[in-house]
Amino acid sequence: MAEYKAPVRDMQFVLYEMLDFESHYAALPGGEDFSRDVVEAIMEENAKFCENVLAPLNAIGDEEGCQWNEGVVTTPTGFKEAYTQYVDAGWPSMCHSPEYGGQGLPESLGTVLSEMAGSANWSWCMYPGLTHGAMKTLELHGTEDQKQVYLTKLVEGSWTGTMCLTEPHCGTDLGMLRTRAEPNEDGSYKISGTKIFISAGEHDLTENIVHIVLARLPDAPEGTKGISLFIVPKFLPNAEGSIGERNAVNCGSIEHKMGIHGNATAVLNFDSAKGFLIGPPNKGLNCMFTFMNNARLGTACQGLAHAEVGYQLSSRYAKERLQMRSLSGPKNPEGPADPIIVHPDVRRMLLTQRAFAEGGRMLIYYAAQQVDIQHYAEKGSEADTNADELLALLTPIAKAFLTETGFESSNLGMQCFGGHGYIREWGAEQNVRDCRISMLYEGTTGIQALDLLGRKVLLTQGETLKRFTKVIHKFCEAHKDQEEYKEFIDVLANYNKEWGELTMHIGLTAMENPEEVGAAAVDYLMYSGYVTLAYLWARAAIVAMQASGDESFYQAKIHTARFYFQRLLPRTATHVATIKSGANNLMAMDDSLF
Amino acid sequence: MAEYKAPVRDMQFVLYEMLDFESHYAALPGGEDFSRDVVEAIMEENAKFCENVLAPLNAIGDEEGCQWNEGVVTTPTGFKEAYTQYVDAGWPSMCHSPEYGGQGLPESLGTVLSEMAGSANWSWCMYPGLTHGAMKTLELHGTEDQKQVYLTKLVEGSWTGTMCLTEPHCGTDLGMLRTRAEPNEDGSYKISGTKIFISAGEHDLTENIVHIVLARLPDAPEGTKGISLFIVPKFLPNAEGSIGERNAVNCGSIEHKMGIHGNATAVLNFDSAKGFLIGPPNKGLNCMFTFMNNARLGTACQGLAHAEVGYQLSSRYAKERLQMRSLSGPKNPEGPADPIIVHPDVRRMLLTQRAFAEGGRMLIYYAAQQVDIQHYAEKGSEADTNADELLALLTPIAKAFLTETGFESSNLGMQCFGGHGYIREWGAEQNVRDCRISMLYEGTTGIQALDLLGRKVLLTQGETLKRFTKVIHKFCEAHKDQEEYKEFIDVLANYNKEWGELTMHIGLTAMENPEEVGAAAVDYLMYSGYVTLAYLWARAAIVAMQASGDESFYQAKIHTARFYFQRLLPRTATHVATIKSGANNLMAMDDSLF
Repeated sequence: MAEYKAPVRDMQFVLYEMLDFESHYAALPGGEDFSRDVVEAIMEENAKFCENVLAPLNAIGDEEGCQWNEGVVTTPTGFKEAYTQYVDAGWPSMCHSPEYGGQGLPESLGTVLSEMAGSANWSWCMYPGLTHGAMKTLELHGTEDQKQVYLTKLVEGSWTGTMCLTEPHCGTDLGMLRTRAEPNEDGSYKISGTKIFISAGEHDLTENIVHIVLARLPDAPEGTKGISLFIVPKFLPNAEGSIGERNAVNCGSIEHKMGIHGNATAVLNFDSAKGFLIGPPNKGLNCMFTFMNNARLGTACQGLAHAEVGYQLSSRYAKERLQMRSLSGPKNPEGPADPIIVHPDVRRMLLTQRAFAEGGRMLIYYAAQQVDIQHYAEKGSEADTNADELLALLTPIAKAFLTETGFESSNLGMQCFGGHGYIREWGAEQNVRDCRISMLYEGTTGIQALDLLGRKVLLTQGETLKRFTKVIHKFCEAHKDQEEYKEFIDVLANYNKEWGELTMHIGLTAMENPEEVGAAAVDYLMYSGYVTLAYLWARAAIVAMQASGDESFYQAKIHTARFYFQRLLPRTATHVATIKSGANNLMAMDDSLF
Repeated sequence: MAEYKAPVRDMQFVLYEMLDFESHYAALPGGEDFSRDVVEAIMEENAKFCENVLAPLNAIGDEEGCQWNEGVVTTPTGFKEAYTQYVDAGWPSMCHSPEYGGQGLPESLGTVLSEMAGSANWSWCMYPGLTHGAMKTLELHGTEDQKQVYLTKLVEGSWTGTMCLTEPHCGTDLGMLRTRAEPNEDGSYKISGTKIFISAGEHDLTENIVHIVLARLPDAPEGTKGISLFIVPKFLPNAEGSIGERNAVNCGSIEHKMGIHGNATAVLNFDSAKGFLIGPPNKGLNCMFTFMNNARLGTACQGLAHAEVGYQLSSRYAKERLQMRSLSGPKNPEGPADPIIVHPDVRRMLLTQRAFAEGGRMLIYYAAQQVDIQHYAEKGSEADTNADELLALLTPIAKAFLTETGFESSNLGMQCFGGHGYIREWGAEQNVRDCRISMLYEGTTGIQALDLLGRKVLLTQGETLKRFTKVIHKFCEAHKDQEEYKEFIDVLANYNKEWGELTMHIGLTAMENPEEVGAAAVDYLMYSGYVTLAYLWARAAIVAMQASGDESFYQAKIHTARFYFQRLLPRTATHVATIKSGANNLMAMDDSLF
């Protein structure tokens, strides 16, 4: 029932018409290898794989789930075959360095491709997705030897990777972690401890799994400053790269979850497993941040993916399902009733999903563009610093705002189905269940909000924010005189100003009472998300107004922008009011009264 | 893991301290039989049953679900035994007329009891819950003979009932229904057709099931004016009331759903099943409205139930789970970290749930009080009209607003658990899945919103609304001069005024364009819900301020009221802004562009 159609036209719009990826790619080293023609051909090919291979496995994955039997995990029917096809077609190596077998395409293209795969089948997508984090960690912090042994295998896709952070008593608060690493005489380590919530932690897709594990050295300082990173492969590789001895890491069980049933969420027991230090001792958490930002953008993409899927499912249904008559007279007089798309409230639900899906796409691709710049720019150059700071600001916004609005969207998609939405066969309820995790893992919405307001905004005295509001200001200045843009530009300019004032307000109250930061954080993040998307929607509207040809596409874009500005952006008013209400209404009640 | 504790203290507060049920019950016929002592003893007894028998079956029901085998449905382990206990203790007959074996207690008390049962185990609760609708229909529209045969069995609990409305091609739009009723010579009818989404439609709890079925007589007019109601028992009763011949109604399958797995959602095939007309021919939909209002208040209660459960689960967890330090310095310096309840954002999530759960309770009990008045007042008297109109207004608000906020609350409850919330064992994710149906069945949020704004408010030229805003106005006038109430009363008075103005605004725009009604409806409903709860929270706060003793209870009440006014009520600003943005931003985009 729940078929997925990759929104290639809209992706092209964002990449090439809105964000000028043509110049962006041309300016990157080797840019001639990924001209627009090449990129679009890759996108079309990937779309086919996602639509025809991954999407049909999505409901199967949910229904069957993964099976655990004495430490062995079997993935749902078809997952392994799809993975083999994926590897054979060379998809895993697409955006990695040719030094380790990669094809050297820019990371932003990987983001575009993973949007499609994730929309088609998020559970499946997490197997290669988590690997991406492990590869990133190896690329940045591994020794040349580690890269040759592990990275090459991960790049070719014949092994997958995981990130092992969480323990039963600590998730957010990694300073409390207890997994120990005792040195062996040969320079390796004995890793002992239990890790939970390890996505793709055990499965039957590949012959080996490379775990990146956070653990403590014997003499490590307490807290976050005493955490080191280790490579712990499921099978220890032989010198020539083949699979050797089984390592003492075992999957104790897999979790029974609300959704993403097709992905195995493993409890991993390390019982003096052999591990290899990666990066400097006690600096594991710093090394981890590279990966975490990466994973957070990936999770942001999940919000967009579920919003897109919800929209596709519900807009199709809304055109077919006949129920009641339009309040302004029959629109389908020959039929027994009108299609429900005639009803304003159904359109409200559809447009909300669409505005968040398309707006989310703009934000993710915009962030991905900064990732490219950061990757290729000279360290410490203005371009590098700029991209770095923009990303620092946009990552928590994208992660939390797009998953919150993605969850809202997936629920609205389900709501369009009426009672049928609650039934498995339509796919809308799976879309809600699968989406729900996105607000929890890789740092909850509350944690993202503290990262944004505390670390990124207040700790830099607003400098990081100013870098972005200047971008918006410049854009407004450039377009403010054109009458037909005013409905967007005037509104945006006001919000851009208010954003700074609101930040100042919080900064001042926080000097009196540090709890004000926590009390304001989530509302501040949501506010920031709405304004960020307003900037992008204004850009999109202006591009569409200036464009010619493909009229229905551009018309829809302008209508959706208008809807966003008139019906979603006003939500900011509530966030401003609650922020200004202060921390006291949260903190005054004694713990014992809860 | 997920234990439930009936909030008896808070229930007592709402009933006796806030809404003066002591006088209310005393004024009802036979009121001496349900004095406060008696009612509280019944509540305590019911609480024990819900906590000890129903709550432990909640996770089992979710895990096992119902099993269908060749038309026979088996409920989860323990459901039947619990039902037998429930019947043996006399719970089903509590609030029904002694003429048919009932104990004659007021319906509002039934609401209070069903809140507990529903919170403990919503899926189980739906078996007797749906019966309630069938009983109501029989009480009001059945012949004496029908009452003696069917109602007595339903009241004693030895049979259960269902309501069979929906068909595959129509849910909201019942005018399209196709099930036919052909007259037999003996005055009965042959019913043929397929009904879907029949909650509690088939099960093993009782020896018989009484279906109330909507169908068309052969000569019936098209549309909603040609629908009649029929009693179609699973087994035809013999003259002496025993079970006779099996009727031709069969359960073709049960649905695979997102949640409420313990309740069988049946597809029922009527194949010339024997049925008996109830109420006048072609007036079935009118008769149905009695039941529907009843069911809508029951579903409103579901929103409250899941908010309460989410709050109980998450507030317990938040006091135990240690993670990170408070921004204002350690609160648990001896421990490895602070309990997460110290974090402002966790408190925001807890207080939101609490404000909606406790506020929802006030609204439901307030509505239930009107149900009692309506039940006992002389038809056409001022008391009757007043209760009738208040209920007409409050029912769609309670149904949609409390389920929307109940779903938000259940999600916030889950969010407090971080990643653990996504795992089945904690119960928080089941609470979300079970809650999700409440915004869909018994009329979606969109349908409630049209009922409120179109039928209840605009069609009465605002008279029905004015009846309620006058109540609020009188309350504000009576308390406006006391300095310590101002934080509530001044704000409430402004909203009460704005509510009328907003209604006027919509009324005027709707005269130009009928689509404005549909475009404004859901925002208008949510706005109305926030103001209605503000009125009730203001009442609660003032009662708490005036009370003595039990200080921590009253302090918590005042803090929660303040939180509601400062952090939830400002959401109205967004609803006002989006309503005022008009219908054009929804209607201008051509259907083909979606």
